[in-house]
Amino acid sequence: MDTHHTVSGTEAPVYGYSGDKAAYQRRMNRIEGQVRGIARMIDEDKYCIDILTQISAVTKALHAVSIELLEEHISHCVVGAANESAATGDPAVVEEKVREASAAISRLLK
Amino acid sequence: MDTHHTVSGTEAPVYGYSGDKAAYQRRMNRIEGQVRGIARMIDEDKYCIDILTQISAVTKALHAVSIELLEEHISHCVVGAANESAATGDPAVVEEKVREASAAISRLLK
Amino acid sequence: MDTHHTVSGTEAPVYGYSGDKAAYQRRMNRIEGQVRGIARMIDEDKYCIDILTQISAVTKALHAVSIELLEEHISHCVVGAANESAATGDPAVVEEKVREASAAISRLLK
Amino acid sequence: MDTHHTVSGTEAPVYGYSGDKAAYQRRMNRIEGQVRGIARMIDEDKYCIDILTQISAVTKALHAVSIELLEEHISHCVVGAANESAATGDPAVVEEKVREASAAISRLLK
Repeated sequence: MDTHHTVSGTEAPVYGYSGDKAAYQRRMNRIEGQVRGIARMIDEDKYCIDILTQISAVTKALHAVSIELLEEHISHCVVGAANESAATGDPAVVEEKVREASAAISRLLK
Repeated sequence: MDTHHTVSGTEAPVYGYSGDKAAYQRRMNRIEGQVRGIARMIDEDKYCIDILTQISAVTKALHAVSIELLEEHISHCVVGAANESAATGDPAVVEEKVREASAAISRLLK
Repeated sequence: MDTHHTVSGTEAPVYGYSGDKAAYQRRMNRIEGQVRGIARMIDEDKYCIDILTQISAVTKALHAVSIELLEEHISHCVVGAANESAATGDPAVVEEKVREASAAISRLLK
Repeated sequence: MDTHHTVSGTEAPVYGYSGDKAAYQRRMNRIEGQVRGIARMIDEDKYCIDILTQISAVTKALHAVSIELLEEHISHCVVGAANESAATGDPAVVEEKVREASAAISRLLK
């Protein structure tokens, strides 16, 4: 199982996003703050159109995170699985990763 | 500007969503918890596809909130403005509310 | 002016988009041509990414048409129904139009 | 098998979708017919909400085609490029394919 290659001696797998972990967390924290801000707008009876604008901003920020995670999934997990399948001659490993990526894209588009 | 009719004597306007304020806030609090859960998944090096699944769930929940807010905007603000325009003979009030709704829909679709 | 006010003596209702009918048809004809172009790209074994770019362009063009149709639905059908409900004191007419608009927005977002 | 491996002696590249070419063209022809049907609905003054329902159906059909094309892009072009990069030791080939896939996903989400 080398698609998420583990650093030998440790348990945690290293994914594509691991290098940018701190950056991803800062973005998720910012999104969390935006969501909390929307709850506060509702509490303060803000105008519904202004609330909708903020929701669109959060959705857009989540889309941006999704696209980057997908890009890293493809460039790490899929490509890693392709190399593994090429080495072993068994296409099942890469096929599963491709299917997972495709299912994730499909969920994002719905 | 009577599309968000104020109860006389108070400052806060009453919007379409005001009646369900508590329900909207519970939903936003749940979404905030989901976003925090995603940040934690990143922290714990969870599999990128599982993170993407959670992001899709949050986006879907935000879409559901948006659609209800829009429905309430149309049924309260737009319809209220239509009545005001009918009473005053000035279509500008309702035209502005329609334009706002349309712009909000456009932002959601992007 | 009711929700789809018929010019007396004729059968066809006049909707919000009727005034721009020719413009809408030109746009739909252009979209039809784009779709035919995509079929041709597949026939000519064009690169899949270029096909995807064209599909995105068609989706975007359809979204733009949708948003304008929705805006006209709201400004004509919903506002017309609001006036009718105000005149008759029966909110059912406008409520149905609002529900239809909301369901249409929901379908577009999926 | 490289990214768009040409059968030696012929000009046309063979993409991931090539095997299902006939099926893709039938789908695009059906979509073209749906778009023509929408133009006809406008011509016949059909109800705007019914037109919006048809536009949503076309958008959904285009999304389904997109997702399959993307899946084939990833399983053929990206995986092919991964093998090529593994063989040559030059990651540039696969990196470009991943970037293209990611940009295509981003365009679909907008």
